[in-house]
Amino acid sequence: MKVDSAGLDVLSREECLELLSSTPIGRIVFTDRALPAVQPVIFCLDGEDIVIRTGAESKLAAATRDTVAAFESDDFDPRTHAGWSVTAVGRTRAAHDPAEIARLSALPLAAWMPGKRDHFIVLSTERLSGRRIRSQSVPR
Amino acid sequence: MKVDSAGLDVLSREECLELLSSTPIGRIVFTDRALPAVQPVIFCLDGEDIVIRTGAESKLAAATRDTVAAFESDDFDPRTHAGWSVTAVGRTRAAHDPAEIARLSALPLAAWMPGKRDHFIVLSTERLSGRRIRSQSVPR
Repeated sequence: MKVDSAGLDVLSREECLELLSSTPIGRIVFTDRALPAVQPVIFCLDGEDIVIRTGAESKLAAATRDTVAAFESDDFDPRTHAGWSVTAVGRTRAAHDPAEIARLSALPLAAWMPGKRDHFIVLSTERLSGRRIRSQSVPR
Repeated sequence: MKVDSAGLDVLSREECLELLSSTPIGRIVFTDRALPAVQPVIFCLDGEDIVIRTGAESKLAAATRDTVAAFESDDFDPRTHAGWSVTAVGRTRAAHDPAEIARLSALPLAAWMPGKRDHFIVLSTERLSGRRIRSQSVPR
């Protein structure tokens, strides 16, 4: 296992993708009127892409049309602080092709919020990095 | 309870601060070499400011010197998707004054990662917004 300069286990791309497929909730990071913005989302992997379903008129849909965004998911034990986090940075695009939309509609992406959610954001995981923190390695 | 256009409960500033004080883990959102970046952190409230402890030489310390950053914390049930999220956007600064550093050092900010963590980032919660998602309101 590779360890980074801070003493944390460095996860491989394969481990990052496996962890991302183990949880339905993440956070997308984008720019909203020149300010950093972050929003929790339900997501799903489609191959190595991150797929998010939202409303076509949402602030998130508007802010993620053909830009670069970050995405983060994690799972930590609040008591021991042991856990993992995975961060992706990549280009985002809206799905437009009807065949792609039909395919993405079949993904296990539960509707989270009320309202029409017929817009799919696809984030490529060009840069994917992950760390694991072991409870044994946590000093006080 | 106020409800937003997506049908989510809008939390008051007081509720946001109360929820932030209920959890030790959040995510700070900043810009790293012109790209969006996000990093999980242990945090603590100091009045209405968010305080994060890190190493003085860390990427996070360098990226948050006198800028605007976002911060997010949440707690969702992965099964029902019920839960809450709170987002803050505000100016960040490094604590320099020895009296302030002594005071922040006494905060219940557990060391998370190995290594020297003697740098305090203070993020003001100028903009604070929160939403609650009730499991009852989640359609499939």
